[in-house]
Amino acid sequence: MVARNAFYAQSGGVTAVINASACGVLETARLFPDRIGTVYAGRNGIVGALTEDLIDTGQESAEAIAALRHTPSGAFGSCRYKLKGLEENRAQYERLIEVFRAHDIGYFFYNGGGDSADTCLKVSQLSEKMGYPLQAIHIPKTVDNDLPITDCCPGFGSVAKYIAVSVREASFDVRSMAATSTCIFVLEVMGRHAGWIAAAGGLASDERHALPLVILFPEQVFDPERFLRAVDEKVRTTGYCSIVVSEGIKGADGRFIAESGSRDVFGHAQLGGVAPVIAGLVKERLGYKYHWAVADYLQRAARHVASRTDVEQAYAVGKAGVEMALKGHNAVMPAIIRTSDSPYRWEIGAAPLAEVANVEKKMPLEFISADGFGITEDCRRYLQPLIEGEDYPPYAGGLPDYVTLRNVAVPKKTATSFSV
Amino acid sequence: MVARNAFYAQSGGVTAVINASACGVLETARLFPDRIGTVYAGRNGIVGALTEDLIDTGQESAEAIAALRHTPSGAFGSCRYKLKGLEENRAQYERLIEVFRAHDIGYFFYNGGGDSADTCLKVSQLSEKMGYPLQAIHIPKTVDNDLPITDCCPGFGSVAKYIAVSVREASFDVRSMAATSTCIFVLEVMGRHAGWIAAAGGLASDERHALPLVILFPEQVFDPERFLRAVDEKVRTTGYCSIVVSEGIKGADGRFIAESGSRDVFGHAQLGGVAPVIAGLVKERLGYKYHWAVADYLQRAARHVASRTDVEQAYAVGKAGVEMALKGHNAVMPAIIRTSDSPYRWEIGAAPLAEVANVEKKMPLEFISADGFGITEDCRRYLQPLIEGEDYPPYAGGLPDYVTLRNVAVPKKTATSFSV
Repeated sequence: MVARNAFYAQSGGVTAVINASACGVLETARLFPDRIGTVYAGRNGIVGALTEDLIDTGQESAEAIAALRHTPSGAFGSCRYKLKGLEENRAQYERLIEVFRAHDIGYFFYNGGGDSADTCLKVSQLSEKMGYPLQAIHIPKTVDNDLPITDCCPGFGSVAKYIAVSVREASFDVRSMAATSTCIFVLEVMGRHAGWIAAAGGLASDERHALPLVILFPEQVFDPERFLRAVDEKVRTTGYCSIVVSEGIKGADGRFIAESGSRDVFGHAQLGGVAPVIAGLVKERLGYKYHWAVADYLQRAARHVASRTDVEQAYAVGKAGVEMALKGHNAVMPAIIRTSDSPYRWEIGAAPLAEVANVEKKMPLEFISADGFGITEDCRRYLQPLIEGEDYPPYAGGLPDYVTLRNVAVPKKTATSFSV
Repeated sequence: MVARNAFYAQSGGVTAVINASACGVLETARLFPDRIGTVYAGRNGIVGALTEDLIDTGQESAEAIAALRHTPSGAFGSCRYKLKGLEENRAQYERLIEVFRAHDIGYFFYNGGGDSADTCLKVSQLSEKMGYPLQAIHIPKTVDNDLPITDCCPGFGSVAKYIAVSVREASFDVRSMAATSTCIFVLEVMGRHAGWIAAAGGLASDERHALPLVILFPEQVFDPERFLRAVDEKVRTTGYCSIVVSEGIKGADGRFIAESGSRDVFGHAQLGGVAPVIAGLVKERLGYKYHWAVADYLQRAARHVASRTDVEQAYAVGKAGVEMALKGHNAVMPAIIRTSDSPYRWEIGAAPLAEVANVEKKMPLEFISADGFGITEDCRRYLQPLIEGEDYPPYAGGLPDYVTLRNVAVPKKTATSFSV
């Protein structure tokens, strides 16, 4: 059997552990030189394939590849670029096959969320129709935790851990200050469509560290009066309150609360920034002094406090993707299968991409407590194992020693150019 | 010699390591039971002394006291409550002495910043005038890093490390996304009067991890045109730019930029939130897609990524405070004396409170690069040792296992009550 080359690309918003998946792909591929020649990475994701801007990962040392496991972000560059439907833009898909053919690529590893699962499936289908032999494997990644079949999505566990840790720490802080000063802390978290990340804030409070939390989920219509009553009750009974708010909460009119709050210096409605709106509302109506924070990229880039479980799963899906390809699988995604809550146990299964593409997993409504402002025991049982364990990066000079790859370009072979 | 009791209080904004100073005070005091009876802590800082709401730290186990070393926030509660001048409100100071006398307190350890150094000095002076024997020791603490004499202030090093780590991680993130999406990341940091914390963001970039940073210091008048040129130049040469902005930057009119930007839902100028103003300006004028974050309390509570140097210094000033008291010192502050930059070496000296109170240390202007948007090598040489080393807290269930003390109240002994 002649070795064929592989293509790997990172897609969509990056995470603290997407490079751990890349590490899993690359280290595993290197174990099978008789089957897999060189792994080419797309510079800036799939755009690199369309423009034939490929990176020769064979030029990276084993040490550099190993360091990807502890380096956040997308080492080859990612992109927000959704391929259109096959019917609308068949040329894009045919261009992919053209580039793959030129570089004898027999394996396509696409590391991303729901959109990239769909693209991966379409590439698989088109290559079959065109008679070009290709095994297309989707490697799951998304902090949104919204891929189906897999129990969780690599990238989410580390965001969840960051948010839970941050809420615990900031709550201890505001508790210290509440008697004479700030008694309200508001943290805005990601999750425009689903409350998975907001729910993770609920883990900050447990039996040994009881904290008065109010969580605002995008699954619930924001009701200012009920919210203010919940906050006031926490402050009156415990002296303070920490509020975790999803960026995606909406009012009864269906509009994002983040948009309703403020206008920027140019008079435009300011996108993002629901935290100051919520804090201002509490101040105006209840008179409490507040502080607010917006975690934004810090939450998904925080490799320094990544979940060991998440890192291990991210590596495992990368490794499994290569193994599945070598076993002849096509149009599948390695999925995390939970076999036990406590002790937490998981294994990797294969999910057919036809069942993954265009299916969005919602957070179960029974994960939200009856009052709408907290998480249930079911939710805790699901979330807690995902933040379990620490996996610190090496430090040098007081800072995490993350790797920046050489990212050497592969000479172009096609005569055509392609604009994206 | 008969043992006398001690009083310890936390003052002002809390930090990731103020409890490490408490740990140093309490563990050291417990070594000298023949000299120091019980250490009483003020519940919610000095307010607890005025209202005779004292906490009996003798009721806490050795394990609980030891856990203070890795627990952020103020374990006994802090307060924002500045005692007025002696002439204006002698009654407050006399009340303190009354409570101290009732509980046979011979040692006063006050853990805070500039204001509390001043209070500590006044308490010392009044006790002397009133013939009440008291040794008043100020234990330095402030993320603002603005106390004189001491080379740095416990609490600052951990904020500096958090900001440097966060800027590095978020910069890696935006670098990954910049080709097709976000190429500007803005992080707002604390430091209303001085740029120490903003400067720490500059540590994120070094020889092995070169990152295009633009730092906005409160020491510089904000000039939108020069700023936009600097950002645009970074984006044009490297593809992206990370901006670190101090909450305290002001325009040529002397007004905070944070106030100029937006109005809240009630039409009030919105305090805080300079990051969205800066991000909006970049978008409006340069057209670049942005993300922004506001770290707020997260930066000063982040014990999970504390600087080991900072933790050790925080503990050391607490320990030294007790040792100085036992040696008969009065109206002093343990100060950190740097004896070598590289390798970094430090020792503890004694600073007279008369030279500490009401003196604010500014960041040297030569720490800011000639273009006004970066840090100099002098600055790096000063800052880098302060973030050196990691000191992880223990984790349980995926979260830092911080201690919450029992905080048992001491029965009141004075017949009078006092309102604050």
